[in-house]
Formats: sequence, structure tokens, C-alpha cells
Amino acid sequence: MKITTLGEALFDSPLEHHVSDKARVLFNVIVDPDRPPKEELLFEVAGPREKLFFDPQQARAGIVTCGGLCPGLNNVIRSLVLELHYGYGVREIVGFVNGYQGLDPWRGSEPIPLTPEFVEDIHKEGGSKLNTSRGPVDISAAVDNLIRRKINMLFVIGGDGTQRGGAALFQEARQRGYALAVVGVPKTIDNDVPFVSRTFGYVTAVEEAAKAINCAHTEAHSVHNGISVVKIMGRDAGFIAAGATIASQDVNFTLVPEVPFVLDGDDGFLAALKERVEKRAHAVILVAEGAGQHLLKAGDEQRDASGNVKAKDIGAFLCEKIDAYFKAEKIPHVMRYFDPSYLIRSVAAGAEDAVLCDFFARNAVHAAMAGKTGLVIGFQHDKFTHVPIELLAQHKKRLDLDSPAWFGVLAATGQKFAQFAL
Amino acid sequence: MKITTLGEALFDSPLEHHVSDKARVLFNVIVDPDRPPKEELLFEVAGPREKLFFDPQQARAGIVTCGGLCPGLNNVIRSLVLELHYGYGVREIVGFVNGYQGLDPWRGSEPIPLTPEFVEDIHKEGGSKLNTSRGPVDISAAVDNLIRRKINMLFVIGGDGTQRGGAALFQEARQRGYALAVVGVPKTIDNDVPFVSRTFGYVTAVEEAAKAINCAHTEAHSVHNGISVVKIMGRDAGFIAAGATIASQDVNFTLVPEVPFVLDGDDGFLAALKERVEKRAHAVILVAEGAGQHLLKAGDEQRDASGNVKAKDIGAFLCEKIDAYFKAEKIPHVMRYFDPSYLIRSVAAGAEDAVLCDFFARNAVHAAMAGKTGLVIGFQHDKFTHVPIELLAQHKKRLDLDSPAWFGVLAATGQKFAQFAL
Amino acid sequence: MKITTLGEALFDSPLEHHVSDKARVLFNVIVDPDRPPKEELLFEVAGPREKLFFDPQQARAGIVTCGGLCPGLNNVIRSLVLELHYGYGVREIVGFVNGYQGLDPWRGSEPIPLTPEFVEDIHKEGGSKLNTSRGPVDISAAVDNLIRRKINMLFVIGGDGTQRGGAALFQEARQRGYALAVVGVPKTIDNDVPFVSRTFGYVTAVEEAAKAINCAHTEAHSVHNGISVVKIMGRDAGFIAAGATIASQDVNFTLVPEVPFVLDGDDGFLAALKERVEKRAHAVILVAEGAGQHLLKAGDEQRDASGNVKAKDIGAFLCEKIDAYFKAEKIPHVMRYFDPSYLIRSVAAGAEDAVLCDFFARNAVHAAMAGKTGLVIGFQHDKFTHVPIELLAQHKKRLDLDSPAWFGVLAATGQKFAQFAL
Amino acid sequence: MKITTLGEALFDSPLEHHVSDKARVLFNVIVDPDRPPKEELLFEVAGPREKLFFDPQQARAGIVTCGGLCPGLNNVIRSLVLELHYGYGVREIVGFVNGYQGLDPWRGSEPIPLTPEFVEDIHKEGGSKLNTSRGPVDISAAVDNLIRRKINMLFVIGGDGTQRGGAALFQEARQRGYALAVVGVPKTIDNDVPFVSRTFGYVTAVEEAAKAINCAHTEAHSVHNGISVVKIMGRDAGFIAAGATIASQDVNFTLVPEVPFVLDGDDGFLAALKERVEKRAHAVILVAEGAGQHLLKAGDEQRDASGNVKAKDIGAFLCEKIDAYFKAEKIPHVMRYFDPSYLIRSVAAGAEDAVLCDFFARNAVHAAMAGKTGLVIGFQHDKFTHVPIELLAQHKKRLDLDSPAWFGVLAATGQKFAQFAL
Repeated sequence: MKITTLGEALFDSPLEHHVSDKARVLFNVIVDPDRPPKEELLFEVAGPREKLFFDPQQARAGIVTCGGLCPGLNNVIRSLVLELHYGYGVREIVGFVNGYQGLDPWRGSEPIPLTPEFVEDIHKEGGSKLNTSRGPVDISAAVDNLIRRKINMLFVIGGDGTQRGGAALFQEARQRGYALAVVGVPKTIDNDVPFVSRTFGYVTAVEEAAKAINCAHTEAHSVHNGISVVKIMGRDAGFIAAGATIASQDVNFTLVPEVPFVLDGDDGFLAALKERVEKRAHAVILVAEGAGQHLLKAGDEQRDASGNVKAKDIGAFLCEKIDAYFKAEKIPHVMRYFDPSYLIRSVAAGAEDAVLCDFFARNAVHAAMAGKTGLVIGFQHDKFTHVPIELLAQHKKRLDLDSPAWFGVLAATGQKFAQFAL
Repeated sequence: MKITTLGEALFDSPLEHHVSDKARVLFNVIVDPDRPPKEELLFEVAGPREKLFFDPQQARAGIVTCGGLCPGLNNVIRSLVLELHYGYGVREIVGFVNGYQGLDPWRGSEPIPLTPEFVEDIHKEGGSKLNTSRGPVDISAAVDNLIRRKINMLFVIGGDGTQRGGAALFQEARQRGYALAVVGVPKTIDNDVPFVSRTFGYVTAVEEAAKAINCAHTEAHSVHNGISVVKIMGRDAGFIAAGATIASQDVNFTLVPEVPFVLDGDDGFLAALKERVEKRAHAVILVAEGAGQHLLKAGDEQRDASGNVKAKDIGAFLCEKIDAYFKAEKIPHVMRYFDPSYLIRSVAAGAEDAVLCDFFARNAVHAAMAGKTGLVIGFQHDKFTHVPIELLAQHKKRLDLDSPAWFGVLAATGQKFAQFAL
Repeated sequence: MKITTLGEALFDSPLEHHVSDKARVLFNVIVDPDRPPKEELLFEVAGPREKLFFDPQQARAGIVTCGGLCPGLNNVIRSLVLELHYGYGVREIVGFVNGYQGLDPWRGSEPIPLTPEFVEDIHKEGGSKLNTSRGPVDISAAVDNLIRRKINMLFVIGGDGTQRGGAALFQEARQRGYALAVVGVPKTIDNDVPFVSRTFGYVTAVEEAAKAINCAHTEAHSVHNGISVVKIMGRDAGFIAAGATIASQDVNFTLVPEVPFVLDGDDGFLAALKERVEKRAHAVILVAEGAGQHLLKAGDEQRDASGNVKAKDIGAFLCEKIDAYFKAEKIPHVMRYFDPSYLIRSVAAGAEDAVLCDFFARNAVHAAMAGKTGLVIGFQHDKFTHVPIELLAQHKKRLDLDSPAWFGVLAATGQKFAQFAL
Repeated sequence: MKITTLGEALFDSPLEHHVSDKARVLFNVIVDPDRPPKEELLFEVAGPREKLFFDPQQARAGIVTCGGLCPGLNNVIRSLVLELHYGYGVREIVGFVNGYQGLDPWRGSEPIPLTPEFVEDIHKEGGSKLNTSRGPVDISAAVDNLIRRKINMLFVIGGDGTQRGGAALFQEARQRGYALAVVGVPKTIDNDVPFVSRTFGYVTAVEEAAKAINCAHTEAHSVHNGISVVKIMGRDAGFIAAGATIASQDVNFTLVPEVPFVLDGDDGFLAALKERVEKRAHAVILVAEGAGQHLLKAGDEQRDASGNVKAKDIGAFLCEKIDAYFKAEKIPHVMRYFDPSYLIRSVAAGAEDAVLCDFFARNAVHAAMAGKTGLVIGFQHDKFTHVPIELLAQHKKRLDLDSPAWFGVLAATGQKFAQFAL
């Protein structure tokens, strides 16, 4: 797991403490004679280095936030700025606005100068003070712009695609002979970044999701045969769904992208739901937004003339199917649908995420100052690490169905392991 | 405003204090020589009476909750039970389950005995421990049931229709020569009950709505030209919308049922929204669910082949219209839609509503014990009153467009008084 | 209740709507033949006037916040600024810092220019952006300063003493022939301002106090014979204690300044507490900071050599007495003391208080623009009024022991009316 | 790290999945050629085993909670009961009340039968449904009692001393030839249990502490030279103080037990505080309850005639010292003291802690069913483990002053590493 560096680090760090460049974090921490690990991975330990590549007096830094909102964006921005300013004495820091659009001088607004005064209280608010946007970066225009502005370090807060864009920026700069450190802070509320056990915002999302589930449970429980469906974030992975299920203990069915499920038939989801409702007179269903996509792709095209089947959401789809099924079965019931996604993404980070953001950000600064590039800050076994961006593309992080997390879901819901699985 | 009584009150109250039966609360409290009031209304002051109609040792009480959830239902149930039990010594109290269905022995489950132990901690939870349902009561079956169970007092927690049902129950019982006191606690999260300045749950709803608006503002503010639409409760009246607008101070357009509005044209809502977005690059729209119904009724039928125009909701409709308009105007924008209704209705009552619930409930018990019937507990000028149910049907409570509340909305949003009004 | 004016109002208001100067709000709203009111009071209705005394183009306004923190201070500042700026077009607004000290150029810092940008988000934070301080104003120095700065309107946010200082400022200015409108927004978290049914911050304080009581109840309930004492704000009046008792329903003894009580003896508080603990194995006591002061003043001097009996607080005193009593009675017990005062005063205003603050502030601006002075904004029967400052000094607002509020406390705690009262 | 077992496990587990008894978790996860680890530790992986020692049909379980309150106690109780009942089919589960007192039939009340119905909603409340107490267990009486009641498994939720008591119980039972599995769930809000990276309740405590700090900051920031002192839990270790400092980013001085500090002199704390206040006009100090104990022990005896210097708390002591110092320096200032300890310990667990509790509890059940004893459930590198109780006594967990956590504190506060350290 070699980290790319811009060159030899020669400047002395103004920080009193530092981490050895030789220290590594083990990826595998379980030794099981019956299950030897396929490969051993070792990651550089993140942290301040004794020698810096950039002269803090000359260095200029840029920050950009991309993609959807996630609790903690402002915390990361703030800690980046404060570590650069107070930790290293970097005086020129700018924030590019509106995500990657802001790197393109033809599309973006003028960057914002970032000072300790500007960031003073921003961590108490949700959202991003730099705004975000989706979509790719124009590599050539962006590198032109960065060189023109003499930006040496770019901190990229965003998901997979964003980080790949960051790697492309660094490579383009290198080809032009310009030393640009690009360091990423992985951002996905879904918590599905490999080599990052917990992305910032995830704990807050689970906390807020659990509140929504509590409401859904109250609604279902306060009428006869109340059925509440809660759709939650999780495009490819069910981590938020799993966490919120275990935290709330009020969910009866948790549907995640990792477990394709059958709706109809004796072993299908609808029959299981019917059994539950007949027994307990209420039910709460938690569905990750990426669950059951196979159900939406096939056999539904005729419903919508404009052809945008893909856009149809699993939450609304499930409600419709459940409602039709219970009507057909002549079981009186009351449906409630909850879609709290944007009410969750926009809140300020809770304390645990605030701490995480601070560590991610300061470690990103340490890496960039040492001239490391093309990496994101990882977090495993309570240690922060350096993860080469290309490694992210080669691995996926999904809910392991043979893990305590999934067994915790089964215990909390009473679902069987393979119940109504495809 | 004569309150109906079941007969002469003869038993001594066990309570130490009491309120005179002659005391009245003035309805009009403003004296303006230029605007004499149309009529003067006087309401009985609620509170414990010196003499009771029912013998506490013999009395049996029933409680029922109807309609949608509202923060505070369990508080009301709890305080009814505790006042009956500890205040008067009534020992037989039952809760009919699932709303008015529970009064009908053929449709309902067996009522739940209500004791201080049962209600001990229920006020800390949202929902209704007695469950609720919608729909009318079968008068004849219900009165049969009440007589058979020797219920003398029925406490009805619900909205307009529910209270009218309660009045019908009392009249049917009277015709049969059975002394049944029916006392209502008005329940509507919309706060649109006449002669009740604040219904329980309203303050909590405004608090929660303001949180959702804060999220909507963050989402709109964190992207370029972000437009957030928040749909909030308010079928016929915009009180929650008005309160949440003034509380949050983050709304730019507040749309209420009382102000039909024009979408298109130079003076329409869409043009005003465009102006706002071009000036500030984001906007938050708060729309009461009953606003703009005229827009949904006419001219939209062609859009939906299945003919269910009525079902279409103003929030989704607005999003669609705004999206189409901004696309046609070629203004890049990001839409976000928030529909927090059930996330609000299901929370536990905040402190202010908890206090209100306690007073409503205890005053309902005082009224019933004194043999008063066919009334709901009112609340005006910080005084609790007795309001004959038939009076409710003759008056409506709507947002007064010449009131400080509406001017507060205009000041908070910057909307003009008649801006895009029909 | 004549309000003093600076002279004839001649300028046209830029606002579209206005309230008649002849309209009055009745103080007495209950008509009881057995209890005729002692005196009838009528208050001017607050609101925008058709004619203004000050020319908005020329007017200059100052704002000052005094005394302890209270949720909503920033909301009031913000709405004052926005109504002055957007409502009337006043462009020169300054905030004097550190309370009345800031009016004295020799002691205070330079005032802060207040703009819509400055106040944009301040209502989301607790505290006061203008800082506060305690202590009187140097009338002469302050008026010199106000005249030198050409301030025409001074908005004073504070309690009784602060408002009397405001009246003195206006009179001194009048004597010097300078037209200064001084308008107060009454601020006391204790809710003890006459002619103001609810001061801002009170509802938030009750909400937070109820949370602290919930914690105290949990602590008491989770050990054998747990006794929790919670001290709460309320120097002269028990409104917060009463509200929090009724809201939480978890308090067993509520001690307020209005009911001096006896500690010892068969009818004393300690014996009643013992009875409760023996019966239920836990107890929660809520004590207003001004309760039981007679106990601290007399007979305790021998305990403390340094003579500072006055400084001893009733909460700590009660804990000590209870602990000694239970030890003497050989009853094992666990004491817990809660003093959440500053954790409450410093939070941001809840939604209900936020609405109240907005109305108080905008009505204060309307009054000042019309040239009214020497008044505070009152709030009775859900109407905002003008209350002459001198009237405040002539009346007191205390918890009425014959009111529903106090009976609500007795019902919630199970205390008897005169139990252990002096 | 050998775990003691009661004997050969022979019964088949009813669970579908299981963890190998040979799998181990590495303690050291960092490989640094310059810093070889002193010793390598390996821990058994917690989780369900294929074979059980106890026959679920015959097994009887007991649960006891000891020591101070901590968010999550009820979650642990609930998940123990549900895993025993639904996971394994154990039908006899009792809760001993009032901590270890409840194990002694002469001192305790009758145990409570624990069923899924009893525990249904208890995780939504703070405190412990089984009550707690401090103090040791009478080994002989307790084992008599456990044998008489045929309890095979005892789940002990508590801190170090409690767990040592649990080990003594198991050894006494073994000596008597009685197979008793004692499995501990480590409980300390201070987070200072070795081999447990995060104890349950810690994250919630940091969240609540950060709220209190926010209030303290508001109070300090809203007056001239405001100084707020917040005392927080942390008898021997500063983990909560460190977490809350990094989360809130509003603390200027963090004082922990691991860093004894000097008050007076040019390099002392008071001089540093003075410098801060003169520069920024406010300061927030966070002090762990166990910090600065050396200051209280020496040289203060003359202050208090009754000789109970040890009882004096560092928070009140600091306030007194700061106040005296600033008065002597003639710097006007306003002191505020915050002691939120019991307001934090008594709240319900947040979502992250709720998840943690569930895993701790279910793994404790798995261990006991497999006949393992004399252990607590550990948690390292996101894996749950088995930790022999005697190992706990041999290690301490303290804030490492060379760790990212402490450097995060220094970065957040701006303190220097050795500033005013002894």
C-alpha cells in the first residue's frame, strides 16, 4: 500500500510531535487457524510527520466539498482551516464553492478566503458553507485554475467519484510538472467506503434515523393494523438500516441492498408481513433506498408511459404493493410512509461525528504538508491511515451477512436469515 | 352560551376549592369605539364545582381518542384518569380502544381498565395508548354498550366530527332516559377549533415544523439555487404554517388555505420565486396541506389518466410546477421536498403542551362530575371555559389576514400582503 | 393607563396596516357577580400606527440588553433590527454592549452597528450578541452619549430595574429638551412581570426544567430511597416551578417563594418527605431559588462562622437538612442535587418563545416610531399592549394560590394545599 | 489470555451461526520497526458457539446492575433477556434489585422475573429498571442464594470492583462444586476499562457534556470577561473531557487526571487563564472530577475546620481560586460553574451506545451459554472479545498523552503540551 509522494520532505515541522513514516496498521486483526486471510494489507499510519514537503510560509491550500449533504461537512472544513492556520502557519486558504464546479473558473464563482474567523462557529450548523454540487470536474480547466492560483494542496471532501476526480487532478498536475498534493476526506453518509470503518456523518444519521423509526413505530402502534414503511439512505449498502434497526429495536423487517428479496408467494415478504400483522396488529418496515431494485426493474414498465422506471422509489413501491396485498386479503390496515432522508442529511454533526471529523481533517492536513498525494484518510481499528485512492476503486464495502452487525439485525427484528431472500 | 346539564348537582365535592357557576369569561377583550363587536359572547368558567351530579363512589367513566395522532393524547388520557381517581375517587374507568369503533361491541375490542399504574408513564410517549381510528360512531350500538357497562361519563378526545358524534351520543342517551355526561377535549393539531386559542399539540407541532424548516433551509442554502418545499399540516387553516414561519424566520414564501394564490403570470407565485432565487440563490417555501386546492381541482385532469386528481397533493404539485418552470426558464436549480407530517404528529408533547393537556383534562373531569354535558373545554384569554358543542358547528376559526399573526408572517418572509393572491 | 408620547405624530407610516390608537384591551376578562373587580384597567393595543413621530430617514435607534441571560435575547435583537430596517427603513441602528455599562462612554466599548447581515442567524444561538451586565445606568453620562450619537429611540431589554432605568433616561432627556423614545421589552425568565402573561424565555425554561426533573426522577427512581432535589429559577415567584411540575408530572414536592414552609415537626416538610419515601422508596423535590428564605435568615447563624448566611442557597440547605434528618431517623437513602440554572438560561429559544420574541420586538418598534415612550410592551389575553413603566412598579405578579396553576401543582404532586405551609 | 470454562460444552446451539473457539483478536495492530510491542496479547473472539455448556431448557439466569447510573443500563438488561429468551429459549430469568445488595436475601428485596414483556420498552428510558447500589457483595450469602435459586448464569453489569466481586462469586461456587457462569458487561461512563476501546454510555456522555459546554460557552461569551468552569465525569481518566473538548471545540483549558498541573506562578494555570481572558474577554475551562487532586490534598487544610478536605471538589475549588486571583489582579470578571454530572448519567442511551449495548449483552449471553466464566466482554478494533477478569486488575486504561486524542485536545484548546503541567 505505497502512498505516492510529491518528493523529498525537507522542511522541519513546527509541530512538537510526529508519527513515524514506517509505522503501519494491520488490516486483518483476527487470527483464525481455520480461516487464514486471503491477503495481508498494511496501511501507513496517519499523523504529523517530522519533515514537510511544503514550506508553510509559501503553501496555499484549497478546499472543496462535493455530492450530497452529510452531517459534519462544516466540521471538516473548520478543522482543515484551523490545523493549516494554527498548526502549520499556512496563511492562504481558499474554499472553492459549489463543489467541483467551483474549480472551473468558467462555471464557478470566486473562491472564498477561509480564515479562523470565517470558520469559528460553522461546525454548529448542518450543510456546507462552501456549498456542494454533483457532477465531474473538468480536469484541464481545474488544473489551470489551481496553478494560476498557486494552490499546492487541495482537500477534497466527497465520495468515490469525487476522490477519483481528485486523483486525476493530481496526475494531470504531475504531468505538467506542478507539485499538487490532493488529499481526500471520504464522505458518504452510507458508510460504504472500504478501509474506513466509520465515515463521518454515519453515527448522526443512525441517531436521526432511529428517531424517525420511533415515530413510525408510534404511528403503527396507535392504530389497528398500522403498517409503517420507513425509507432510509443506503444506495448500495445497508449500514444505516442495520445500525438504526439495532439502535431502535422497533423495526420488524429490515430490507437492504445486500439481500434481494421476494415479495410474493408463501415465502415472500408480503406473507411474512401478513403473519406479523395478524399476530401483533402493527408492523414497522425499514427499507434502504437501494434495496429491492430488482423488483423495480422488471415487469413494471407498463405503469409509466414516460419510461422512467428507474426513478421509481422502493419506498413508494413497497407501500403500493403492501396496500394492494392487504386489500386483496381483506385485512383492514393503515399505511404510513416516512422518507426522512433530507431531514437527516442536513442536521449538524453529533458529538461522536464531530470528533471523527476533527481527526479526519487534521490528518488530511498532516498528509498534504508532508507531500503525500493521491490518498484519502482511512480509519480502521480506531487508527487513522493513508489509503491510496486507486485502492478504493478495487474494493467494495458491503454489509457482511456473516457478521455480528447482520446477526444483530436478525435478533432485533426476529427475521430469519434467509427469510424471503431471493 | 347555556351549558346543558343532566340535572341538579347534589353531592358534595371532595375537592377543597371550587369555581362559581355564575362566573363568565368575556369573548371580546378589545374595546375599540371604531369597531364595536358584532355580538357579545360569555362562556362559563371551567373548573371544579361545589356540588356534583354524580356520586363518585358510583360513577363510571369511559375515555375514547379519535382521528389522527396529535402530541399530548396520552397526557390527556393520563390526567383524566388521575383526576377521576385521586381527585374524585372514581374507581371504574375504562378506555375504549381504536376510537369510536371501540364503542361498538360488534366491531371493537374489549375496553382497557384504566388505573393510575397503567397511565403512570404514558405521557412520556407519543401516540395514543388507546389507539385511534377515523370514522363515525354507531350511535345506537354505542349507547346500548355504554348503558350496559353503566358508563355515566364519556370523555371524547377528538376533532369537530368526533365532538358532534359525542353530542349525538348524549342526546340518544337522554331520549332513553339515561344520564350520560359527554365532555369533549378538542383535538386538532391544526389549531382551528373556535373558542380555543390553542389546542394541545399545536406548540409541539410548530416546534417540530421549525426543525424541519431548518433542515430545508440548510439543504436549499448548501447548493446553488436550492429550492426547498416543506408541506405542513393545515387542512383548512394556516396556523401551523404561520407559527413555524415566525418561529424559524427561514421561510421565504408561506402558502396557506386562507390565501388562494396564482401560480403563473407576472404577479404569480412562480415569478416571485424566480426573482427571489435570482437574488439570493436559494429559497424555502412552506405550504399548508390545504393551500392552493383550487389549483388542483381545475385544469389538471389531463395530466393523470387514472383520474385521481383530488388525491394529488399540493406539495408534490408545487415541486412539479416549480421544476418545470425553472427548466423552461433555463435556470439551473436543485429541488428538495419535505413532508414531515407523521414525524411531527407522533412525537411526545413538549412541556407547554403537556401543561395545556393537564388543564384540559382536569377541567373536563370537573365538568362531567358536575353533570354538564354536550360541551367541550374551551381556552380563551388564558382561561378554560365550557363551550356548547353546537356552538362549534356555527363558527370557524381561520387565520385572520388582518391579525398580528399574518403580519408576522409577512414580516418574516418579506412577502407582500396581496402578493400572488387570487 | 395613559401612555406618554413625545409629541404629535406627523409622518406617514410606510406600513400598509395599522392599529387604532383608541383601541384598548380589557384587563379583567372574568365577569363574576359574586366577585366584582376592584378596578378596571384598560391598555392601549400595541401595533403599527398610521402616523409616526420620527422620520424613518432621520431616525437612529439603539438597543441594549441587561441582566442575566434568558432564551430569546438574540431573537428580540434580531426582530428589532429587521422591523426597523425593512419595516420602516431606519438605517442607523447600534447595539450598546455589556448592558447599561455600554451606554456610558467612559466604561463601555464602542457600540456595534446592527445590520440585517449581522443579525441574520443570531436567533439560532442562546445568549446575547450584545452581551449583558448587571447594575444601574449612569443617567447623565448615558443621556449625554445618546444625544451626542443622535439616538432617538432606545430599546431596553431587561427586568424591572432595567426598565426603571429606561424611564429615568427618557425623563432626563425630556428635561434637556431632547426627544428620546425609550421602549422596553420586559425580560425575566421568572415570568413575574405584571401585565405580561408570559415573558419570553419562560416556555423554554419550563421545557428545559422538565428535562432536568426527568433526570432527577431517573436518579431517584434507580436507587433505593433515592431523593433528588432540583433547584430552579424563581427569585420571588414560583412560575417556572409550577410550570415544570405540571409539565413533568414527576415532582412530589414543589416549594415556591409564595408558600413559606415549615421544615420540622409532625406537620413539617421533612415528616411529609419521610412518609413519601417510606411509601414509594423515592422522591423528587423541586425548589424555586427564592423559596424558604425565612429558613435561611433565622436561626442558622451558628452553623457558619463567616456569617455569610445570606449567600447560602436553599437547594444546598435543603439537601443538608434532609440528609441529616434521614440519618437521624436511620433511614438509608441516596441524595442527589441538581442546579441546572445556567444550563437553562443559556439555551436558544424554543419555537413558542421565538414567536413571542418576534411580536414583542416588532411591537416595540411600532411604539417607538409613533413617539411613545416610558412604556414596556405587555401581553395579556393573547394581545400585545402598551404598559406605562411606572405601572410596573405599582404591581407585583405572583403565583396566585387560588388559581388553576397552583391547583395543577397540587394535583400533580399530591401535596395538600396548606401542607407544611408556615 | 485463557478463558476459564465450567467444563465441556455438549449441547447443540439452537442458533444458526457460530464463531470458532480458536479465533483470536490481536491486541497490537500497529507494526512499527522502531517501536516493537512489549508483549503480544490475543483475545478470544466473542460470539455464539456451536456447543453449549448449559441446556437452555434447564438454565436459569440472573442479572444485576451495580454502581452509578450510566446511559444504556436498560438496553443491556433488555438485550440480555431477549437473547436468552428468543435466542436460546431460556425461560427463567430474574433481575436482582438494588445491585449486589439484591443478591443477599437478608438485605435485598425479592428478585423480579424478567420477561420480554417486562423489558419491551425499557431501553427508551435512562436509569436501571433493576436499580443499582454501591458496595461489595457478601460472597457467601450470595452464593447460597444463587444455588438455592438454581441460578446457573449471572450477568454482572458494573465497573472494576463489581467485576472482581463477580469473579469471587464464581470461584466460591466452584469451590462448592456448583457450576456458575459469571459474565460481566463492563460499565463505566469514564471509559477507563482496559481492553475496551469504548464502554457503553461514553458516547452519550460526550454528547451531553458537549451540550453543557455549549451553555457554558454562551454564558462566558455573553458577558465581559466571563469565565465558565465545567466539571465533568472522569475520576482517574480524562476520556470524557477529551472527547467533549474535541466535539465542542469551545473549551480553552482541559484539565484531566493524567496531567497534574500548577496553579500559581508565571507558568501556572491562573496566569495562562489571565492571558486568555485579557486577549479574548472570555474563557471556558473543562475539568475532569479527578483532575488536580494533588492541589486539594496539600496546603488547604487550614481552610476548612471540619477537616473534610478530601470531599472538596476540584470544580468548586477552581472557581474559588480563579475568583480570588482575578480579584487580586483587579480584573473584573463573571464566574459561572457547571456541574452537569447527574444530568448526564441519567439520560437514555443515544443510538451509537444503544447499538454497543446490544452487542455487549448478546455476546455476554453467548459466552455464558458456552460455559465460559470469570470474564467480561471486551471491545477492541471493532471486535467483541472475551477478557479474563483478572487481566482487568493488571492493566489500567488512561489517556495516552502521546496519542491523537490528547493532541486533538491541544489543537482544539490551543493549550501547549506541557503548559502548566506539574
